[in-house]
Amino acid sequence: MASNEISGGKLRGITKLADSNGRFKMMAIDQRGSMKHALAEALSKTDDTVTYEEIAEVKTSITRVLAPYATAVLTDPIYGYPYSIMEIPRDVSLLLAFEESGYVTEGVGENERASKPIENWSVEKAQRAGADAIKLLIYYNPDASEPACKHQQDFVRYVGEACEKHDLPFLLEIVSYALEGTTKSVDFAKQKPDLTFRGVAEFSKPKYRVDILKLEFPADLKYTDEYRTRSFYAGESAYELSEVRDFCKQLDATSALPWVILSAGVDIEEFIEDVKLATEAGASGFLCGRAIWKDAVPLYPDTDEVVKFLESEATENFKNANIAAENALPWFEHRKFGGKENVGLAKQSPTWYRDY
Amino acid sequence: MASNEISGGKLRGITKLADSNGRFKMMAIDQRGSMKHALAEALSKTDDTVTYEEIAEVKTSITRVLAPYATAVLTDPIYGYPYSIMEIPRDVSLLLAFEESGYVTEGVGENERASKPIENWSVEKAQRAGADAIKLLIYYNPDASEPACKHQQDFVRYVGEACEKHDLPFLLEIVSYALEGTTKSVDFAKQKPDLTFRGVAEFSKPKYRVDILKLEFPADLKYTDEYRTRSFYAGESAYELSEVRDFCKQLDATSALPWVILSAGVDIEEFIEDVKLATEAGASGFLCGRAIWKDAVPLYPDTDEVVKFLESEATENFKNANIAAENALPWFEHRKFGGKENVGLAKQSPTWYRDY
Repeated sequence: MASNEISGGKLRGITKLADSNGRFKMMAIDQRGSMKHALAEALSKTDDTVTYEEIAEVKTSITRVLAPYATAVLTDPIYGYPYSIMEIPRDVSLLLAFEESGYVTEGVGENERASKPIENWSVEKAQRAGADAIKLLIYYNPDASEPACKHQQDFVRYVGEACEKHDLPFLLEIVSYALEGTTKSVDFAKQKPDLTFRGVAEFSKPKYRVDILKLEFPADLKYTDEYRTRSFYAGESAYELSEVRDFCKQLDATSALPWVILSAGVDIEEFIEDVKLATEAGASGFLCGRAIWKDAVPLYPDTDEVVKFLESEATENFKNANIAAENALPWFEHRKFGGKENVGLAKQSPTWYRDY
Repeated sequence: MASNEISGGKLRGITKLADSNGRFKMMAIDQRGSMKHALAEALSKTDDTVTYEEIAEVKTSITRVLAPYATAVLTDPIYGYPYSIMEIPRDVSLLLAFEESGYVTEGVGENERASKPIENWSVEKAQRAGADAIKLLIYYNPDASEPACKHQQDFVRYVGEACEKHDLPFLLEIVSYALEGTTKSVDFAKQKPDLTFRGVAEFSKPKYRVDILKLEFPADLKYTDEYRTRSFYAGESAYELSEVRDFCKQLDATSALPWVILSAGVDIEEFIEDVKLATEAGASGFLCGRAIWKDAVPLYPDTDEVVKFLESEATENFKNANIAAENALPWFEHRKFGGKENVGLAKQSPTWYRDY
């Protein structure tokens, strides 16, 4: 008998997010703030003059060309879904973002971040629209003030409960941030392992009802000795590669849930290293956006050039990321499930349909 | 600009039911009454002594072996879903049945049939459980009494409204029946074209909110002259093949919606002819159960023999049906849509997510 039960909708959704071997090779194209900024640079104008149509158009192109290489596509309901939904192939599943892009600073302390939902959007709407899973991004620093931590925790619980009600998989993305200084520093690189572990420990708790964690790499390879000859090396070191491997193992040991790695806009060369190290330690794949396609955006508004880049370099990037994820741990092999033969339908019985 | 708009959930669902070219190659394993009867014969006992476990087990085997050949699997929430859901591959979509198996005769005239829903089941539950579409079977004879016709029409409208509310595709199966005598007669074979056309004309009306029709073949090839040398010929003729081709064309002309052909338990040899003739006339594929796998059931409880048959003959049957459906009209080429480039998202706009 199966020892690890999962409800029908979540089981079906998670199965669809992964490839047939249980590995996640997912693409994110739900960026809003960072996309607006990249387009502003491409068009030599200010962020606030970038139009809806410009954002929607570039998202449509990226989705059309790259979705076929993904097991799932994460998009947003504002600029993404209405103009890209027809570009997602039948066998590529759909994640929809729940959070408003960015964060607010009202009601929390200095340098602290509070996430909020997209107004007039809901888990119920996402399910109706065909979402196979809900994605929520929260900024989280466990050393932030109690009100700031509690705000984020409450928000995650709220979304976890809504996903449980609608029996949709809940994918939580945790992004750490600096309470002092910048995330682009050797100081923050040194803090990163600890910050990551503590965020994962918190949101692994069953009360949040998360199904899959989308995690930052628990270190910064830009500050890793062994990469000093690589183009992404930052010029200072925070740790050695053997320590980074240990951080990945500790991250895996801390996560009570299957987890995937995010790209946070690093270059593809660095991201492929992240994927190799993370999957070696037990990650079940990736959910990656900019590392794959970001260099297409500066070519806008020359749509031919955008598409040409997507069909050549970006496609190559995606294929390389998929190869790097071939060693990922299938989600059902995570110790939470303990193998395919141990995964069972919750409340499996002749009266399932009545009790469901 | 797109001229034929479709809501997001329905668009996504229909896309997933079909193959990447828009053709439906779907398997039905939602039989309950007929499955119980076939198992009773296999086990030399009465229908009412067939156990839940026996039905669920044979459904699980059929789903496990044959689902990979289908673009979608239709199962039932009672015996099917709880023990078969894990057997449906990530890229094979899921239809769930809404109606109770069979029909009731209370409240309608002699020999008339009224369909009813599965108790304690709902469109909302089906959506939560991961259904990509809802299937409803109704028995319909347009010459039945006004209360009998109205009962069935009201039931279809009820389900159509629920599907619209949840933005799930609604697939309606219309099965005609004899008010006098039997459906297995040359007399009924002669009535069949007219009965089929009138049912399709009724439920094509927009008020029922149907998305796809699952239809009987509009004639009976057992009573068609040109098949007199074939094993399925019944010994008497009702029409010539040229007339049958005309019936198929008339059916297509009557259906305001994309339609697929059902197998109604005929042998595979006859079904392949049905599929060829129907797709030649404009059908978008098939939703077929027994014609493909029925000969596996008499081998039960010898599960090895059941699986052996499924992996050999039944697989061959499925592959042949898929080949016969290669000429089917892609759903978006139906005149309702007028080609892929004319299909658009309903309420497509920057405020889609607010208005949805």
